[in-house]
Amino acid sequence: MTTPISERLDDLDEARDSGRRKMDWAIQHMPICGALREQFEADQPFAGERIGMAMHVEAKTAVLAEILAVGGAEVAITGCNPLSTHDDVSAALDAVDGITSYAERGVDDEEYYEAIEAVIGHKPTITVDDGMDLVAAIHEDYPELIDTIIGGAEETTTGVHRLRAMDDDGELDYPVFAVNDTPMKRLFDNVHGTGESSLASIAMTTNLSWAGKTVVVSGYGDCGKGVAKKASGQNADVIVTEVEPRRALEAHMEGYEVKPMAEAAAEGDVFITTTGNRDVIVEEHFEAMQDGVLLANAGHFDVEVDLDALSDLAVDTYEARDGVQTYEMADGRRLNVLAEGRLVNLATPIALGHPVEVMDQSFGVQAVCVRELVENGDDYEAGVHAVPDRLDKEVAEIKLDAEGVDFDSLTDTQAEYMDSWQHGT
Amino acid sequence: MTTPISERLDDLDEARDSGRRKMDWAIQHMPICGALREQFEADQPFAGERIGMAMHVEAKTAVLAEILAVGGAEVAITGCNPLSTHDDVSAALDAVDGITSYAERGVDDEEYYEAIEAVIGHKPTITVDDGMDLVAAIHEDYPELIDTIIGGAEETTTGVHRLRAMDDDGELDYPVFAVNDTPMKRLFDNVHGTGESSLASIAMTTNLSWAGKTVVVSGYGDCGKGVAKKASGQNADVIVTEVEPRRALEAHMEGYEVKPMAEAAAEGDVFITTTGNRDVIVEEHFEAMQDGVLLANAGHFDVEVDLDALSDLAVDTYEARDGVQTYEMADGRRLNVLAEGRLVNLATPIALGHPVEVMDQSFGVQAVCVRELVENGDDYEAGVHAVPDRLDKEVAEIKLDAEGVDFDSLTDTQAEYMDSWQHGT
Amino acid sequence: MTTPISERLDDLDEARDSGRRKMDWAIQHMPICGALREQFEADQPFAGERIGMAMHVEAKTAVLAEILAVGGAEVAITGCNPLSTHDDVSAALDAVDGITSYAERGVDDEEYYEAIEAVIGHKPTITVDDGMDLVAAIHEDYPELIDTIIGGAEETTTGVHRLRAMDDDGELDYPVFAVNDTPMKRLFDNVHGTGESSLASIAMTTNLSWAGKTVVVSGYGDCGKGVAKKASGQNADVIVTEVEPRRALEAHMEGYEVKPMAEAAAEGDVFITTTGNRDVIVEEHFEAMQDGVLLANAGHFDVEVDLDALSDLAVDTYEARDGVQTYEMADGRRLNVLAEGRLVNLATPIALGHPVEVMDQSFGVQAVCVRELVENGDDYEAGVHAVPDRLDKEVAEIKLDAEGVDFDSLTDTQAEYMDSWQHGT
Amino acid sequence: MTTPISERLDDLDEARDSGRRKMDWAIQHMPICGALREQFEADQPFAGERIGMAMHVEAKTAVLAEILAVGGAEVAITGCNPLSTHDDVSAALDAVDGITSYAERGVDDEEYYEAIEAVIGHKPTITVDDGMDLVAAIHEDYPELIDTIIGGAEETTTGVHRLRAMDDDGELDYPVFAVNDTPMKRLFDNVHGTGESSLASIAMTTNLSWAGKTVVVSGYGDCGKGVAKKASGQNADVIVTEVEPRRALEAHMEGYEVKPMAEAAAEGDVFITTTGNRDVIVEEHFEAMQDGVLLANAGHFDVEVDLDALSDLAVDTYEARDGVQTYEMADGRRLNVLAEGRLVNLATPIALGHPVEVMDQSFGVQAVCVRELVENGDDYEAGVHAVPDRLDKEVAEIKLDAEGVDFDSLTDTQAEYMDSWQHGT
Repeated sequence: MTTPISERLDDLDEARDSGRRKMDWAIQHMPICGALREQFEADQPFAGERIGMAMHVEAKTAVLAEILAVGGAEVAITGCNPLSTHDDVSAALDAVDGITSYAERGVDDEEYYEAIEAVIGHKPTITVDDGMDLVAAIHEDYPELIDTIIGGAEETTTGVHRLRAMDDDGELDYPVFAVNDTPMKRLFDNVHGTGESSLASIAMTTNLSWAGKTVVVSGYGDCGKGVAKKASGQNADVIVTEVEPRRALEAHMEGYEVKPMAEAAAEGDVFITTTGNRDVIVEEHFEAMQDGVLLANAGHFDVEVDLDALSDLAVDTYEARDGVQTYEMADGRRLNVLAEGRLVNLATPIALGHPVEVMDQSFGVQAVCVRELVENGDDYEAGVHAVPDRLDKEVAEIKLDAEGVDFDSLTDTQAEYMDSWQHGT
Repeated sequence: MTTPISERLDDLDEARDSGRRKMDWAIQHMPICGALREQFEADQPFAGERIGMAMHVEAKTAVLAEILAVGGAEVAITGCNPLSTHDDVSAALDAVDGITSYAERGVDDEEYYEAIEAVIGHKPTITVDDGMDLVAAIHEDYPELIDTIIGGAEETTTGVHRLRAMDDDGELDYPVFAVNDTPMKRLFDNVHGTGESSLASIAMTTNLSWAGKTVVVSGYGDCGKGVAKKASGQNADVIVTEVEPRRALEAHMEGYEVKPMAEAAAEGDVFITTTGNRDVIVEEHFEAMQDGVLLANAGHFDVEVDLDALSDLAVDTYEARDGVQTYEMADGRRLNVLAEGRLVNLATPIALGHPVEVMDQSFGVQAVCVRELVENGDDYEAGVHAVPDRLDKEVAEIKLDAEGVDFDSLTDTQAEYMDSWQHGT
Repeated sequence: MTTPISERLDDLDEARDSGRRKMDWAIQHMPICGALREQFEADQPFAGERIGMAMHVEAKTAVLAEILAVGGAEVAITGCNPLSTHDDVSAALDAVDGITSYAERGVDDEEYYEAIEAVIGHKPTITVDDGMDLVAAIHEDYPELIDTIIGGAEETTTGVHRLRAMDDDGELDYPVFAVNDTPMKRLFDNVHGTGESSLASIAMTTNLSWAGKTVVVSGYGDCGKGVAKKASGQNADVIVTEVEPRRALEAHMEGYEVKPMAEAAAEGDVFITTTGNRDVIVEEHFEAMQDGVLLANAGHFDVEVDLDALSDLAVDTYEARDGVQTYEMADGRRLNVLAEGRLVNLATPIALGHPVEVMDQSFGVQAVCVRELVENGDDYEAGVHAVPDRLDKEVAEIKLDAEGVDFDSLTDTQAEYMDSWQHGT
Repeated sequence: MTTPISERLDDLDEARDSGRRKMDWAIQHMPICGALREQFEADQPFAGERIGMAMHVEAKTAVLAEILAVGGAEVAITGCNPLSTHDDVSAALDAVDGITSYAERGVDDEEYYEAIEAVIGHKPTITVDDGMDLVAAIHEDYPELIDTIIGGAEETTTGVHRLRAMDDDGELDYPVFAVNDTPMKRLFDNVHGTGESSLASIAMTTNLSWAGKTVVVSGYGDCGKGVAKKASGQNADVIVTEVEPRRALEAHMEGYEVKPMAEAAAEGDVFITTTGNRDVIVEEHFEAMQDGVLLANAGHFDVEVDLDALSDLAVDTYEARDGVQTYEMADGRRLNVLAEGRLVNLATPIALGHPVEVMDQSFGVQAVCVRELVENGDDYEAGVHAVPDRLDKEVAEIKLDAEGVDFDSLTDTQAEYMDSWQHGT
């Protein structure tokens, strides 16, 4: 995988047309990126920069890559998950001036890391990650590049979590923006994006219904909240499992049942994991489940459902539908795993990833973070950095403006009141 | 289209395998039909009967056809919509003992009616319709068959509506059960089935999000209620249009905005029609719409959105995505029509129709209605008949039993209390 | 209780002022009755009629009584529940020209029936009931009046249920409109009115919260649906108990847990009965309940919770708060009964009955039904009658007009389409 | 107001009985305070301390004061709002060993501050505030006491906001815990407590309904989110006004309409302010409002609705109901202000403040913060301090345990996984 995708595909023209059409649809519904594109085209803020990206290569991400290129950058991109790449989009992207794409769907582990190394081979001055694979590979294998790297930006909960651990160990050697943690990402992408797209992907992969189903949601962070809320909004009865007492209480006070997985396992019809942790559903839980349950993961890695243990328990395994692997137990029960335990909103055959509009928000923040690194990179020391509030607000205002939503602003008297404390009852 | 599908397909074995796999998945999640299958297999209630069916030929309907055949019937089936047939399922069905399937996707109007005539050629003693095409064709062109027909069953709102009009005119010459109107169908299939599957189909066809969208739902009958409720449950802001004052008030009291379409047209991001009527969205509305809107129909026929008028207005028309036809206006606005204005939960390329579980309920009622015609057909005069309450309750009890849901029953004292009226304050 | 309330109250002027103020507030928020008042004042449709009423005598009902009097009727009114009368409103009503009010809060059983007889003493030509006490008393004790009675109107589920039983026995000797069953009543009063007012009354009587509570709702008719929906909307976790399989299934598909009361008893924090039946919560259930539960009834009569059995079990009983009776069990558990098991939205000390706006709808229908009896009474035979659809629609249109809600109307082409059946696919 | 309430009330015994009964009901539903009471009674952590409190003196706060006294403190308490004191609870509290209560309902401004000075006269070593009146008065007028003060705790959003402003100016001279900002307070009290109690108070003060109403919520912080969510859960149509773009976008994506107040004013039926700022609804908005609107405030101070401007506009003003002041405009429109623009869930005649259970959480955190000051006060410098996470979690665990809610805990493997970052895709 050390060559761009364009050198590997048959029917390259057809793929590029198809990918381009997907990108056109996406940009039509990405007003933030659209506005930034105009700004970048005029200002050329990224002239002379080399941007390495490891992200899900589908239409929305492609729009981000393209507006960076339009802004003057040389972009090299590959996937951050072997099953999430759309080859046609990868090909269309590779055809854009200033962009090289290595991403291809279905590569094996070795090829996956070769492609990451190919991106690193471009000697990026800025990295844009979804899962910190680029940051990790550079720190482990190419530390010599770090001197010329201005900084990076990281998209996901899991990536930021790992970056902080690395930072705590004193091992993160350039500044990285925690895009995941901004209000503009966290409150929208995780809640609405993961929630809606996971449910739609499950429904359309299985042709099953939510009404009356018992849906077990593991983890009640932003993703879990979104999944629980949207499932409840389709008339499912939701059970939440958690390990943090405040989150457990929050779910309880929202009206959901909260239980240990050991109890929930026997009650659920659908299980959706969102914890970012491993071994959330394991052997003892499989033993307790009912015939016909669905198992889906909406967390970053495919470690939440212990598929090894499930394989060991199964007497037969077959593909019941595209994207549905059925594990048949000795007692006849059938446990149906979606997308091999990978991200269910990205990795089933029909999955499309997050909705376009929520990605527009995340990628808008990504884009202004990259602009910030170019403009003010010297202000940031090595380590994980919160996205400056002014950038996040800028993106919110672009979005509201595009949606035609007007809102109030503080009068001087009000601003003064909020700043003062000399007021009595 | 006067030959069974098996004589027309290439790769017949592959199609049959694929169709069979879809049917196996469906029956796994159709406990009512599963229970009835056992009953019918043992009792052979349909021995000697010929059942003609015109329904959406996909996996769930196939399960209904199969349990009728298992119960002894000779079944002939074709589609009730040229775009809703799954050829693989049609082929798998045609391979079942006692079943002949004529359904094929994408036939033209002439072929569509030829296939209906082929079914009628089997001289059915019972008809099972989804849109009353069989009833209509028999009355118009084959009145000589009516003497030997015991009766029929009709699945949809639209079909029942048309049957009642025919009955009012004294032109319906055999008894037909209005399956659509039973609590077991109306309260579940229309509300949950149409609602969930329409939204999931739109989301997965467009990769767009519901959160923050203004969704205009036309018609606030059971289907409209379902669509509005599920869209609201995905954090859309719902506007309802109606022509009946009580329904308009009901929507208003539910918390939705109610407006004439002439006003809603300018505000909506997504329009979903569920009225069963024609010309719901017409030229004046197209003129007022914003760039990028989606237009989808969840009512039976493709007459709700006036596509002729839209074509006349458009300066360019192209397929933006599979299942999405974009009409570009002279002023640059793009109006995106899904599934050519046909049923959006059935007719987009990825659509799967209603969820399996809600169809299990409708088809459970269909199956016991067919059994009722065989057992007690003489009790029913020509005309539209409500499904007897005892049959509807029987199906509810089978379902609750299968779901493991236990519920209370009246004590003698309570039953007596409910029957009496000599009680004071 | 054979004298009007004005002859019994101290501080009559103060009571009348207070009652009048309550009525003024109500009519301010009752646009339907307001519009009908203008119509009745101009047309004097009730001139010469004597209208007997047995209803909850509080501000909203008073507005109905007053617009009938304004329309020319002689009105005699008493309560339909000893605990629901507001004495000040009763006094203000008694001061209105043409109205005599016998209602007083807290009367005993004997006095209650004396007041009903006092109303009957006015020889009503029309009866307006909430629980059919007037109809029952006339048929049992004053059959000689029936000849001069044009007809009646009945407000509640329970009353209509009892009337139908009476009609089935051939014992109902004049026509009565089942106001309760109209869309304008059933879809709004029962769902929104009972739901909202029951929850608000419980919250403000106990100062307790809904979030995170397990609320057991008995009965899933319109009232139960309203209570469940509103409780869920306050973030309670709802369990439904039912005896009818379709309703049980409907609750299950809505996402609620459905169980027998024998299981729900141990899980609930709050129990709200809406069945219209007796013995819904009995000894075995009290035995299983947790310490601190609340027991409330939203059904017509105080027979749903078996208070006799609860008293027998209790080792101590005391009033923990106004409107809350605590029954302490031998094992220390405290079961808290609200409003002595009577209608919780009417009979707690702070309760105000249904919200003004939903009563405006019911009473609008009552008023046009009374007008219909005067205008077309001869068209109706003895027995229970559905409210004619045109009357119900008239009220809906008045309401929408008052709320400023505009809606669509069918074009001729559409009306024709809906009436025809000769359309193909 | 320099004497305890017991010296001022008539019928002292009756008041104390009534107040005690209210406290008993509260503690029955405050399991966290109940568990802490046992702990404090055994450990006497507050022996020798003098605790000054300025809080809403009603049953729940009384429970907090009492468990501090039970733990060995000498407590002096007064109100933090002239209209929120329950005199009977104040009297019952004053009768508790170790507690002196100065709070009385309806005092004027001068008396209000006298009572605060009376509390300060006890030379508190710890302050517990709801609105920082004690902190402010001590810093302004009694700076000599600061040396002996260990620290304080502040309950509300507004108080914390003002404390931070004071801290930023370098003028806060002892440590204060921002109880308001803890997850255990912010996620529950503000969202569920303010939301539910504000709506129930409005409904029971007006007898009006939420279904179909347009409710304008000003401010989309935690309180505003709670009010919007609960109003939506009662089938209101919610409009949000905001000044912060992310919050405005969050409301928009939740499905609410977002508008400037200048537009919302003409559309709302009910207005609820939650901003903590002044002049949210002012003259230009009153001019645009419809007849019959309700104006209520759920923010800390009565400055959100500009009542002076409203008075100036009105041609007549009268009390339409207890707790409802009607301002009649020259054109006949009536604008109804609840609770004189003070906290609507505390200051209407029937209002009871926050629900018992959510206050149990806040007061549980208050109590462990006071314990922390006694145990580790030296660790905290002057300034505003976040509540240590371990304390907040401790309270969550006590609550879950009391509710019988079990939840998962991390395995060692999982904890290790979450801490590591060396994992690939």
